[in-house]
Amino acid sequence: MRTIAYLGPEKTNTHLVALKHFGPRCKYVHQPTVEEVFSKVERREADYGVVPIENSLGGAVTHTLDRYVGYMDTTARIHGEIDLPIEHGLITRPRTNPEKIQVVFSHPQAFEQCNFWLQKNFPGASRSETDSTAAAVQRLLKKSIGIWSTFYKLNQRAAIGPKELAKEHGLKWVPIPQERENRTRFLVLGRGPLSRRRSSKTSILLILKDRPGALYNALTPFKNNGINLTKIESRPSKGRAWEYVFFIDFEGHEGDRNVKKTLRILGKSAKELKILGSYPVKKVRK
Amino acid sequence: MRTIAYLGPEKTNTHLVALKHFGPRCKYVHQPTVEEVFSKVERREADYGVVPIENSLGGAVTHTLDRYVGYMDTTARIHGEIDLPIEHGLITRPRTNPEKIQVVFSHPQAFEQCNFWLQKNFPGASRSETDSTAAAVQRLLKKSIGIWSTFYKLNQRAAIGPKELAKEHGLKWVPIPQERENRTRFLVLGRGPLSRRRSSKTSILLILKDRPGALYNALTPFKNNGINLTKIESRPSKGRAWEYVFFIDFEGHEGDRNVKKTLRILGKSAKELKILGSYPVKKVRK
Repeated sequence: MRTIAYLGPEKTNTHLVALKHFGPRCKYVHQPTVEEVFSKVERREADYGVVPIENSLGGAVTHTLDRYVGYMDTTARIHGEIDLPIEHGLITRPRTNPEKIQVVFSHPQAFEQCNFWLQKNFPGASRSETDSTAAAVQRLLKKSIGIWSTFYKLNQRAAIGPKELAKEHGLKWVPIPQERENRTRFLVLGRGPLSRRRSSKTSILLILKDRPGALYNALTPFKNNGINLTKIESRPSKGRAWEYVFFIDFEGHEGDRNVKKTLRILGKSAKELKILGSYPVKKVRK
Repeated sequence: MRTIAYLGPEKTNTHLVALKHFGPRCKYVHQPTVEEVFSKVERREADYGVVPIENSLGGAVTHTLDRYVGYMDTTARIHGEIDLPIEHGLITRPRTNPEKIQVVFSHPQAFEQCNFWLQKNFPGASRSETDSTAAAVQRLLKKSIGIWSTFYKLNQRAAIGPKELAKEHGLKWVPIPQERENRTRFLVLGRGPLSRRRSSKTSILLILKDRPGALYNALTPFKNNGINLTKIESRPSKGRAWEYVFFIDFEGHEGDRNVKKTLRILGKSAKELKILGSYPVKKVRK
């Protein structure tokens, strides 16, 4: 039986994606941080890991990128990308009267994505940030959690989170309309390279020498070898201030002839070049 | 007298930078969000604004970039960049015994930057996140702020923040050694373009058409006209999922002949191109 480590807690979107991808016949272990998902895979305590990498509204999940920047010799490679539509909903106890809601619990990113809707529909409610949408539902449910119990009654509380979370606890879920397309991309982490047959995309990490035109020169071999870049993202390097690491995604497999040639040229001029993986991309429905 | 709006509250690093840059003979008005600093400048209620744009450890301040993405027709232009070294210190009441500290208050980014030091020196202390380092010191000081007073005595509390904040309240400040160079860049916002004499750097915002090689093609005129790029950063656009806005910084003034030529070529192929400003760069000491 395969073991899958994912960024927890349970029933958040990362868990749902892992379940959809690997199915029911696996052992799922939730981890408190992105760091620990990577570690589980590296130490062979898990066969695969699942972490978020980017949201279409909030941008890059910097913890995931920075884990690669901080441990460039990691053995955890990208084995897949999963693109999931995100649906937020207002979760309450079944008999809660919406007019009585005085506090809403959720993750900061969910608040940002539901900002206008909350302002319009619950202008008077305070917002309380939690580490995850699952933790928000815990605050909604628990009668005695110290500080909150003194402030708000159970029927004055709401949370924002996915439908599955509400369902699990027998709570009410009302969808919150999103103004813009809200999707999250997740990475499947594994060990070793994948075969060419299954893969369509490659990710690399690149540190360039501090020279005029360095980025342009780095992109030239891609152009000359007919390789299409799909994404470029920069993060601070672990070296000097204002030195950057680039994450570049492109179409093709690391074993393809034109990709091999491109990476060989790039490797000569770059300060660091690391192949993160060649892997398939999957879009899933809710 | 000039009015300067800055991301508040008072005595945080943004305030210190504003004071250093504009001197004592200005009216300083602190704003609760980046959004409101921009608004003050746009509505002519402030002559200048000061907001953080990037930290050398944490990366881009996405709120500031996203304000430009969300309001591309803003009249707020970049009038300067200020590069400040960041020093964090542990703030306590003068007679607090460090061994008794049970809770540390600070901004999430300060926690991240002092993570290892805190783990080593205060492994047992809980961490409580605040919106700013100034708010952290408020929690340290106030005897009755509801929930905290029931948990921790005044001499069990500490905060992480800049020296000036401790000094203002007569508190003790012990520097926290930083493993890596910690600097923050701030933007000075103003209205209208600056003259060429004073400026050394230009920032633009760019949305490319979704085409193979689009980024490479966009960088080509810079290369051909001998312009050195100093920074490239991407953020989600406000349009479709996985469409990006690029922020590009380069050497030179928007009135320079080679820059004008480059931007003219770029403007023809880009979906959107906006000049954010040509401005001087200043490094300040603490």
